[in-house]
Amino acid sequence: MIVRDFHDLKTTDRSVSDQNWNSVRMLLADDGMGFSFHITTIGGGTEHTFHYKHHFESVYCISGKGSIEDLATGEVHQITPGVMYALDKHDKHTVRCEETLVLACCFNPPVTGTEVHREDGSYAPAEESA
Amino acid sequence: MIVRDFHDLKTTDRSVSDQNWNSVRMLLADDGMGFSFHITTIGGGTEHTFHYKHHFESVYCISGKGSIEDLATGEVHQITPGVMYALDKHDKHTVRCEETLVLACCFNPPVTGTEVHREDGSYAPAEESA
Repeated sequence: MIVRDFHDLKTTDRSVSDQNWNSVRMLLADDGMGFSFHITTIGGGTEHTFHYKHHFESVYCISGKGSIEDLATGEVHQITPGVMYALDKHDKHTVRCEETLVLACCFNPPVTGTEVHREDGSYAPAEESA
Repeated sequence: MIVRDFHDLKTTDRSVSDQNWNSVRMLLADDGMGFSFHITTIGGGTEHTFHYKHHFESVYCISGKGSIEDLATGEVHQITPGVMYALDKHDKHTVRCEETLVLACCFNPPVTGTEVHREDGSYAPAEESA
């Protein structure tokens, strides 16, 4: 059994930050669960475009307020506590944050922890980032 | 892109309850994500023994207070907001809830939604419950 506390991991190399964006990797590929699990915090007043071409991701809003735009259709969905979005078609999307968003994120295949966001908003497939 | 709100699903057949226990299935096997994602609420003052012999499960505490006992070792871990446990060895365990726990749970393989907890605390493997 693995037991980890977000508050402890915040100050370790499992906490990865970019501009106005932090992700604490609670579970990564080498934990052997077959998915990875992250707590991601996005700063208010920012927007971020991602395109996980090689991963499925689900995102559940724990707290905060924002929106997600599906860039293929232009459709916008509000993000409030209790809302989940799942990128089942590797959907390219923009997240806009009005008030700091705290999000519980699952990735399949699991993130290894060595990926970086590429210019096209994707993570490399696992075989390229390993 | 799938977008669902916990508050809407609470009153549908995606919300499954047992004694002092409710699970809202935000994502199930047929969503094709390769994992399932559930928001589970456990009532204060209750305890529950589970043994997912055929699934990996991770559980992240959003709110509440309780503990998890690893029944193989007797070790007890406190559950407070920010704590995650992951049953990477299909660990048989007892969850004790002091104050209503709200938990974000991921299962691999994904739960189909038709499983019931068997007497041994497990879910059947997908091929038996499909």
